[in-house]
Amino acid sequence: MSFPPIRPELAGIEPYGAPQLDVPVQLNVNENPYGPSPACVADIAAAVSEAATGLNRYPDREFTALRTALASYLSRDTPHGVRPEQVWAANGSNEVMLQLLQAFGGPGRTALSFAPTYSMYPEYARDSLTRWVAGRRESDFSLDLDVARDLVKSEQPSVVLLPSPNNPTGTALPPEAVSVLCEAAGDGLVVVDEAYGEFRREGVPSAVELLPEHRNLVVSRTMSKAFAAAGLRLGYLAADPAICDAIRVVRLPYHLSAVTQAAALAALRHEKELLGRVDELRAERDALVVWLREQGLEVAESDANFVLFGRYADRHAVWQGLLAHGVLIRETGPEGWLRVSVGTPAEMTAFKTALTDVNGERA
Amino acid sequence: MSFPPIRPELAGIEPYGAPQLDVPVQLNVNENPYGPSPACVADIAAAVSEAATGLNRYPDREFTALRTALASYLSRDTPHGVRPEQVWAANGSNEVMLQLLQAFGGPGRTALSFAPTYSMYPEYARDSLTRWVAGRRESDFSLDLDVARDLVKSEQPSVVLLPSPNNPTGTALPPEAVSVLCEAAGDGLVVVDEAYGEFRREGVPSAVELLPEHRNLVVSRTMSKAFAAAGLRLGYLAADPAICDAIRVVRLPYHLSAVTQAAALAALRHEKELLGRVDELRAERDALVVWLREQGLEVAESDANFVLFGRYADRHAVWQGLLAHGVLIRETGPEGWLRVSVGTPAEMTAFKTALTDVNGERA
Repeated sequence: MSFPPIRPELAGIEPYGAPQLDVPVQLNVNENPYGPSPACVADIAAAVSEAATGLNRYPDREFTALRTALASYLSRDTPHGVRPEQVWAANGSNEVMLQLLQAFGGPGRTALSFAPTYSMYPEYARDSLTRWVAGRRESDFSLDLDVARDLVKSEQPSVVLLPSPNNPTGTALPPEAVSVLCEAAGDGLVVVDEAYGEFRREGVPSAVELLPEHRNLVVSRTMSKAFAAAGLRLGYLAADPAICDAIRVVRLPYHLSAVTQAAALAALRHEKELLGRVDELRAERDALVVWLREQGLEVAESDANFVLFGRYADRHAVWQGLLAHGVLIRETGPEGWLRVSVGTPAEMTAFKTALTDVNGERA
Repeated sequence: MSFPPIRPELAGIEPYGAPQLDVPVQLNVNENPYGPSPACVADIAAAVSEAATGLNRYPDREFTALRTALASYLSRDTPHGVRPEQVWAANGSNEVMLQLLQAFGGPGRTALSFAPTYSMYPEYARDSLTRWVAGRRESDFSLDLDVARDLVKSEQPSVVLLPSPNNPTGTALPPEAVSVLCEAAGDGLVVVDEAYGEFRREGVPSAVELLPEHRNLVVSRTMSKAFAAAGLRLGYLAADPAICDAIRVVRLPYHLSAVTQAAALAALRHEKELLGRVDELRAERDALVVWLREQGLEVAESDANFVLFGRYADRHAVWQGLLAHGVLIRETGPEGWLRVSVGTPAEMTAFKTALTDVNGERA
């Protein structure tokens, strides 16, 4: 051991996270650009105030009221309904994912996804000592379902991570993919990560509908994106109650604070308002895709609130050029591509103006 | 794999946590019995209200303002001061501990403590795949420092967990123990867990004072106990900045919500009030020890806000008898012992009355 005695495989690794820079136009971490109304803020403050009168006491370890509210929210996406005992939550969906791998992964087991995909997935695997296998997506970032099924069958992962839409590409899964891969996975879990699920196009069902058909299906969500509450750090999932019970073995006791539970419950009461801009953001996204293509750029199809575009020989220079114009986007995804979040109309105008300038400067 | 595919070593394990029962007198989880004042609650609500106006944005990933406030709070315990870059925080000190073992433990490494001790320690080791070694405490729950040093030297743990005072026994470390074990540990970390540190007797120094002398020393604290904010879930540590930096590799991004950061900062501004009952609780604890001994019971010396007493041939029956009297304590620690938290004078009276009855019924 040397000092500090960090595990050798972690030495020199940069902590995950986009640069947090103070820039006028923030289009880098797929936040919803619309903040809560004064009425919503007041309700959150009132709920926290009530919870804080008992701040000397530990919170409800089972967060019963919050589970019930989340179950009710998810029930709108399925004729079968979702029961509170099917719901689990934690401080952000990345804590939910880590708990899934702590309970169901670990040494001698495999977690599998299809790259390019969310760059935290291999970190959950690393931190839970789970073997990580990344299959490949096609050149348009879609899945070849036959190839995917064969890989699941041959690797026998205990957890398959299946984001829909995928980050950073925006690609939605075809409707039949969930059932095919749930069957291929046997007793292994298939986690459909719907962090951006609420942005899906009209008529595309949520995997929540399929829960009664596949006991190994897990659908995860977050309040950070469409729900416009990234500052809350509340992620959750719906699954067979036996899966939620297994997670309870590895969760840290009282992992959700009384303040978090109260604030999340209050935010859920304002669901209609907080999700109210989703349609607008979808329209803005579709317009952005069209505009980027008009500039002669390659653009990935997107069902999310962000768009992946490129390809640039020196994407870092473009990222830097936009930053100099006060526009922060994300340098992520395959080499040559950049990701931009969908913001307000004014932010989109600022982005387009800046990108036009930067492309011009570099022409 | 069977369904659900939980790791075999976790199958059948009960999730950690005391029963959460709705009982008039709650003396089971070492909470501070005194809730915050209306002024403090209002300040927390106002801080959360301000933070919630930007709820659609992710929080400051480095929680800079909170680190600064915690450093300032800790600086009162040492003439050397504590700088913000020496501070790390997470959702409860158990998340801090898990992060320490994720960064510095893991396969092929050892975490060591001395039993009986906090029952979450082996769970952190289990969940981080770290080998767990428990040395023994003496019959009065103190450490034989020569034996402890020899064990540290022979096991070469990468992390030594050294609670002071110890839970569930209440035993403080002798002042020389920290330096002796820091030297014995070489480049391994020595984590002095001062979750109950503020309850220590007058004149006993905090290990925070020793930070400049031992770069491998980590001192952890929590806002859950003396600070009367268990509902906040805020644990933290002070250490060499290189240790904090290493933890950043394994922390989940944005692990501390904007709401948590705001509420904790507001609570820290009310430090004087929230810690204001510590002297009273210490006096109540000392009186409780005297009273329990007067009843002919064995009682462990305590520097904490709880007392371990016994020994009973059937401790569960005593626990159950107290519960029937509306008093909830904790069935924990070595066989035959029970742990009771120090509450308000009225709660202590209720406990004494109930225990007298239960002892009478069982005589």
